[in-house]
Amino acid sequence: MMKYNKKELLKQKIQHIDIKKFNSVPMIESFNHMAFQSRNLARACKIYDTMLKDKDCTTILCLAGSLVSAGLKKVIAELINYNMIDIVVSSGAIIVDQDFFEGLGFHHYRGFINADDNKLRELMIDRIYDTFIDEEDLRSCDMTVKKIADSMKPEAYSSREFIYEMGKYLDKHGKNSESFVYAAYKKEVPIFCPAFSDSSAGFGLVFHQAKKKDHISIDSVKDFKELTDLKIKSKETGVLMVGGGVPKNFVQDTVVAADILGINTPMHKYAIQLTVADERDGALSGSTFKEASSWGKVDQSFEQMVFGEATITFPLLANYAYHKGSWKHRKTKKLNDTFING
Amino acid sequence: MMKYNKKELLKQKIQHIDIKKFNSVPMIESFNHMAFQSRNLARACKIYDTMLKDKDCTTILCLAGSLVSAGLKKVIAELINYNMIDIVVSSGAIIVDQDFFEGLGFHHYRGFINADDNKLRELMIDRIYDTFIDEEDLRSCDMTVKKIADSMKPEAYSSREFIYEMGKYLDKHGKNSESFVYAAYKKEVPIFCPAFSDSSAGFGLVFHQAKKKDHISIDSVKDFKELTDLKIKSKETGVLMVGGGVPKNFVQDTVVAADILGINTPMHKYAIQLTVADERDGALSGSTFKEASSWGKVDQSFEQMVFGEATITFPLLANYAYHKGSWKHRKTKKLNDTFING
Amino acid sequence: MMKYNKKELLKQKIQHIDIKKFNSVPMIESFNHMAFQSRNLARACKIYDTMLKDKDCTTILCLAGSLVSAGLKKVIAELINYNMIDIVVSSGAIIVDQDFFEGLGFHHYRGFINADDNKLRELMIDRIYDTFIDEEDLRSCDMTVKKIADSMKPEAYSSREFIYEMGKYLDKHGKNSESFVYAAYKKEVPIFCPAFSDSSAGFGLVFHQAKKKDHISIDSVKDFKELTDLKIKSKETGVLMVGGGVPKNFVQDTVVAADILGINTPMHKYAIQLTVADERDGALSGSTFKEASSWGKVDQSFEQMVFGEATITFPLLANYAYHKGSWKHRKTKKLNDTFING
Amino acid sequence: MMKYNKKELLKQKIQHIDIKKFNSVPMIESFNHMAFQSRNLARACKIYDTMLKDKDCTTILCLAGSLVSAGLKKVIAELINYNMIDIVVSSGAIIVDQDFFEGLGFHHYRGFINADDNKLRELMIDRIYDTFIDEEDLRSCDMTVKKIADSMKPEAYSSREFIYEMGKYLDKHGKNSESFVYAAYKKEVPIFCPAFSDSSAGFGLVFHQAKKKDHISIDSVKDFKELTDLKIKSKETGVLMVGGGVPKNFVQDTVVAADILGINTPMHKYAIQLTVADERDGALSGSTFKEASSWGKVDQSFEQMVFGEATITFPLLANYAYHKGSWKHRKTKKLNDTFING
Repeated sequence: MMKYNKKELLKQKIQHIDIKKFNSVPMIESFNHMAFQSRNLARACKIYDTMLKDKDCTTILCLAGSLVSAGLKKVIAELINYNMIDIVVSSGAIIVDQDFFEGLGFHHYRGFINADDNKLRELMIDRIYDTFIDEEDLRSCDMTVKKIADSMKPEAYSSREFIYEMGKYLDKHGKNSESFVYAAYKKEVPIFCPAFSDSSAGFGLVFHQAKKKDHISIDSVKDFKELTDLKIKSKETGVLMVGGGVPKNFVQDTVVAADILGINTPMHKYAIQLTVADERDGALSGSTFKEASSWGKVDQSFEQMVFGEATITFPLLANYAYHKGSWKHRKTKKLNDTFING
Repeated sequence: MMKYNKKELLKQKIQHIDIKKFNSVPMIESFNHMAFQSRNLARACKIYDTMLKDKDCTTILCLAGSLVSAGLKKVIAELINYNMIDIVVSSGAIIVDQDFFEGLGFHHYRGFINADDNKLRELMIDRIYDTFIDEEDLRSCDMTVKKIADSMKPEAYSSREFIYEMGKYLDKHGKNSESFVYAAYKKEVPIFCPAFSDSSAGFGLVFHQAKKKDHISIDSVKDFKELTDLKIKSKETGVLMVGGGVPKNFVQDTVVAADILGINTPMHKYAIQLTVADERDGALSGSTFKEASSWGKVDQSFEQMVFGEATITFPLLANYAYHKGSWKHRKTKKLNDTFING
Repeated sequence: MMKYNKKELLKQKIQHIDIKKFNSVPMIESFNHMAFQSRNLARACKIYDTMLKDKDCTTILCLAGSLVSAGLKKVIAELINYNMIDIVVSSGAIIVDQDFFEGLGFHHYRGFINADDNKLRELMIDRIYDTFIDEEDLRSCDMTVKKIADSMKPEAYSSREFIYEMGKYLDKHGKNSESFVYAAYKKEVPIFCPAFSDSSAGFGLVFHQAKKKDHISIDSVKDFKELTDLKIKSKETGVLMVGGGVPKNFVQDTVVAADILGINTPMHKYAIQLTVADERDGALSGSTFKEASSWGKVDQSFEQMVFGEATITFPLLANYAYHKGSWKHRKTKKLNDTFING
Repeated sequence: MMKYNKKELLKQKIQHIDIKKFNSVPMIESFNHMAFQSRNLARACKIYDTMLKDKDCTTILCLAGSLVSAGLKKVIAELINYNMIDIVVSSGAIIVDQDFFEGLGFHHYRGFINADDNKLRELMIDRIYDTFIDEEDLRSCDMTVKKIADSMKPEAYSSREFIYEMGKYLDKHGKNSESFVYAAYKKEVPIFCPAFSDSSAGFGLVFHQAKKKDHISIDSVKDFKELTDLKIKSKETGVLMVGGGVPKNFVQDTVVAADILGINTPMHKYAIQLTVADERDGALSGSTFKEASSWGKVDQSFEQMVFGEATITFPLLANYAYHKGSWKHRKTKKLNDTFING
C-alpha cells in the first residue's frame, strides 16, 4: 500500500523539452510520404515554415490545454525568442497558473493517474492527469496576482495589459527566466487571454476587488478590440493553434470583427490546429477550417488539422520549423508597442 | 451537381425538442441495469433527480458547444421554467449567437456536412457541422447587442448584468418567446458568460467601444466575484455540465475562490458532465471529477461523467428529471435578486 | 476500504433491455429536426425502417464490442424473432462468451470501473469495464463448446455450421431461452463469426483438437464462401452495423467476392453504423461508407454513420423500428435452409 | 473542377519510413520528464527496450489498422530483421492486401480525403482515408493467393502455414524485397492471422474453393493452438500492440488457452499498446491492461498504453529501440522451426 507523503510525491520536477537538442526534420520529411496523421503533421510543419517565410505574415499562436505543466514552456518561449510568433492568445491557466507560476520559482511534478485524490486533497496536492502541483505554491501565485493588481491604477484593462505587468513583475522578481510570459514581455509580443478570470488570475483579482473599493477591472471587450486592431494592421495572418477552445474562436472572429468595424481584412491565410477534438459533436474545438471558411474566417488554401495529443505533436512541429531556419529572416514585430502603454 | 441557392439552402428550420412530448423514464430505468454509457447515463439521471430533491441544493447548469443551434433551446428553457436550474454558466455563442438570436426571430437551418464552404461564404451562409445560418441575420443580432450597450450607463458590468439587459430587451422587442435568456430573465435566474466577448456579443461590443468614447466594459472579474458570492450563499451546490470548456472550470473554481476570500464553502456536492472529451490529453474538458476532487472542487460521492454527444444524452436526462417530478417541490430561487440591479 | 468477496461482487445481474417496454418514436421524430448526432441517429432509424419496407432487401446485422454482457441480448433476439434481421455476422465473444454463455444459465454482473484487478483475478472474477463475470462459469462454457465439437463428425465446418450446433445444444440443454443464438437457430437465421476461434469457442476447440486426433476444424474460407453465396442470392442487401471490426469488413467484402466469382451483385443498398470510431486513424472501424463506395462495396444513397456508444444508440434504433412496425409485412427468410445441413 | 484521371491520381507512391535515418532517442528521453502522452510514449519505449534486454522474453508484435499502406512496412521489416520481434499476429489486410501486395511489385499512392468516391469507383481506384490503390493490382494479388492455394495439398492449414507459403512465393517471384512477410519467411518468424479470410486472401481462397473440389481450408483453431504452443514454450512474453482488434484479443487469450490445456504459463510480462481507442465503450480495442490483468492475461508491472495515431507513435518507438541497441544481444528465435513444415 502506497504511503502518501507530500515530500515524496513532489519530488520529480517536470522538465521542459528543448527543441534545440534534437532534430525532427528527417523524420518529418519521411512523414510527408506516408499517410494519415504523420502526413498531416508533415503538411502542418511545411505550412508553418511557409508562414515564417512569408514576409507579410503576422503569426499568431493559440494555446489551450495544460501545456506548460506538461513540459512545453520552453518550446513556446523559444518560438517567441526566435521571432517565430508575433502574438499569443491563450487560456488563462497556461499563462497564470502554469507559466507565471513557474516564473515565480515554483514547479510542476511528475505524478501518476491512479492516485487517491482524497488523500492528495488532504495533503494540498492538486492533480492534472499524471502531474502534481503544490496547492500552497498556487496560493502564493494567486496572491502575487493580487499584489500586481493592487499596484495598478484603478481602470479597465485588457488582459494583454495585465499580462504585460506580469512580465514586468517577473523582470524584477522572477526566479526562473524560462517563462514565456517573461520572454514575450522582453520581445514586446502581446499575449491575450480572452477568459482571463477563468484561472489563478481570477482568484487574485477577485480578492483584489473584494478588498479594494477602487479596483481594476479586466475588460474582455478591450481585448477583442486590440486583437482586431492587430489583425487589421497585419497584411496577412497565420494561426498556429495548439488545442481549441476560446483562443481558437477568438482569433478566428477577428476577421469578422474587422468587417463590422468597416474594414475589409483578408481571412487568415494560414491555419494549423493540433487537436484531439472531433468534428462530430458540432462544437468549436473540433470544427474544421473548411467550416470556418464558410464564415469567412480562414482561407482553405493553407490549412491543416492534425489529430494528435500536443505533447508529442507540438515539439515535433516547433522543432521542424526551428531547424528549417526560415525564422532567421524574420524580425521582432514588437506589436505591444502598437498600444500606448505596451 | 447541386445548385447553391440561398433560399433553398435556408428552408428547413431547426426545431427544438420538447421534453414534455415523450417519456424516457422506462428506458433510463432499464439502462440502470445495463453497462457502459447507458448505465452511466442512468446514474447521471438519478444524481440529477437527487439534486432536485435536496432542499439545500442550488443547481448550476453549465453549457458549452453549439447546443441551441442544434435544437436544445427548449430543453434549457424548460429546466429554467420548472425551477430545475438556479444558475446558468455558458459559452458566449450559446447565449448571444444562438439563443438571443432566435429570440429576435431568426432561425437556424438544417444543412449538410459536405457543403462547398466557399460557395456558402459567397452566399453569406455560415455552417456549423450540418447546420446553416444566415450571416445577415447574425449581423443584425450583433447590432442589437451594440444598441443595448449604447443604451447603458458607461460602467464596468458583469456578463450577468449585460445578459439581464438582453432579457429585458427580448421582453420588449423579442419575436420568439421560447428563448431561455428570456425565460431566465423572467425567473430571475442569473446567467454568467465567463468569456462573453468571445461571441457575437463581442462584435457588437467592439463596435460600441469603437464608436463611443464613454463606453461600457465587461469585467470578467466581476462575474467571478458574483458567482463566488452565489456559491457562498448556497448551502449545497450541484452542477450539471453539458460539454466542458470555460464554464466547467469557472464553476469548479468558485469553491477555491471562496476559500481565498476566507470563507469555507463545501465542494460541489453533485456533479454531472455529458461530454465526448477524453481525459488522456490532460485538458480540462475531459478531466475527471476525481481529479477535480484533488483540487477540493468536487465531492466524489455523487459524480458521474457520461461519454456521449449531448444532442442525444441531454434530452434524455432532462426528460427523465422532468417526468420524475422532484422539481415540483422546488421554488424559484430568484438569485438575480441577490444583486443590486438584478 | 472495500472488501473483495466473490459473492458480494457477483450479486447484481445485468438485465437485458426490452424494446417492447418503451417507445422512442416521438423522441426520434424530434431528433430528425435537430442537428449533429441526434439527427444522424434519426436518419439511421429511418433508413433501417426503409430497409424493412423494401421487399427485396435481405438485412444483415453486424455485431462487435461487448454488447450482450452490456444488456443488449434481448434487443438482438427480438430483431430476429420479429423477422427484422435475416443474417447475423458477429465477433466471437458476443456469440460464445456472452450469448451462448447466458443461454447455459450463467450471468453477467454489474461491477465497477476502479476495481482492484489483482484482487479480482485472485477471486477468478473477470472484468469488462464496469461488468464482472465469474471465470469458473466461463470455463464451463468453454467445456461445453468442446463437448459439442467432440460430438461432431471430424470435418471442416464454417462457423455458421458450428453455431447452428450450439443453437441445437441450447434447444436441448439451454437454461435461458432469451439467447439470440437460440432464437436464430429456431428462425433458421444464419450467424457467421469470421474470427470464431478468437473467443471462448477457441478455448474449447483448442482443447478438442489437443485431445482428439480426428478432430473438427473451423474453415473461415467456408464462412466467406457461404456469406458471399447469400449476398449473391439476395436481390438487395442492407447492413446494420453495431461497432466495426472484422464483421464490418467481412460483410462489405462479399460484394467484391461475388465479383471475383464472376457474378455481378449490387453494392449494399443500405448501410448504417453505430460507432465511436474515428476516421482519422485510417483504420477500418471508423472508415466512412463514402470510402467504402470507392471500393464498390456500399451505395452512397442510403448510408448513415452515428457517432455514439451502442448501449444508448442501439436500443433507440431497434425500438424505433419495432414500433414503426414495417417488419410486420416481412417473413422469415430461413436462410440457414439454403445450406445442406443448415 | 478537378479532373479524375487514373494516371494522375496514382502518381505519388507511398514511401516507407526508414528508422535508421533519424534518431528519436534524445526526444524520447526528454518526453520522459514531461506529461500526458509524451511521457506515456517514453515509458512504452523503455518497456520495449527492457523486453529486448530480457533474455527470457519472446516478443510478439500485434498489428491492426492500415499500417503498411500508410508507410510502416519497413519499420516492421526492420524489427524482424534485427531480431526485435519473434512472432507477428496481424489483421489480414496488412499481411495480404498491403505487404504481400507490395512484395508483388504493386504500390500504394498518396491520395486525398475529400475525393469523389463515385468517380474513384468508376476508375477502379480504392481509397483508404488519404491513400489510393489500383483495384486492378489488388485483383492480381487475389489471384496470386488463389495460385498459391491451388498448388498446396488439400488440407486444413493454419494461417501461419499459408503465410509461410506466401513468403516462399515472394522468395521466388517477389519484385520488392522490403516485404515483411518475406523478411519473416527468411528469419523463420511465424506470422498469425486469426481472421485470415477477412482480407484479400479471402477473395483468392473463396475462388480456390469454388473452383476446386479438393481444396485447402484455413483452420483458425489450428492458429490458436500453434500460438498457444509458442506461448507455452516461451519462458516470458512481451507484447507490442499497434492498434487493437482481433490480434490484441488473440494474443491475450493464449495465457488462458494454455491454462485450459492444463499448463500453467505466466501472464504476458510486458505489454504495450499504441492506440486511439477509448475504454469508455467497453470494447476490447480500448480495454486497459489493468482490465486484462483481472482475466489473468497481462501482468500490471510493465504495461503502458499510448493514446496516439500509430503513423507517428510507432516509428518513434521502433526508432528508439533500434538506436538503444539492446537487440544486438538477441538471436533469431526461428520459431517457425517449432512446427513440422515451418
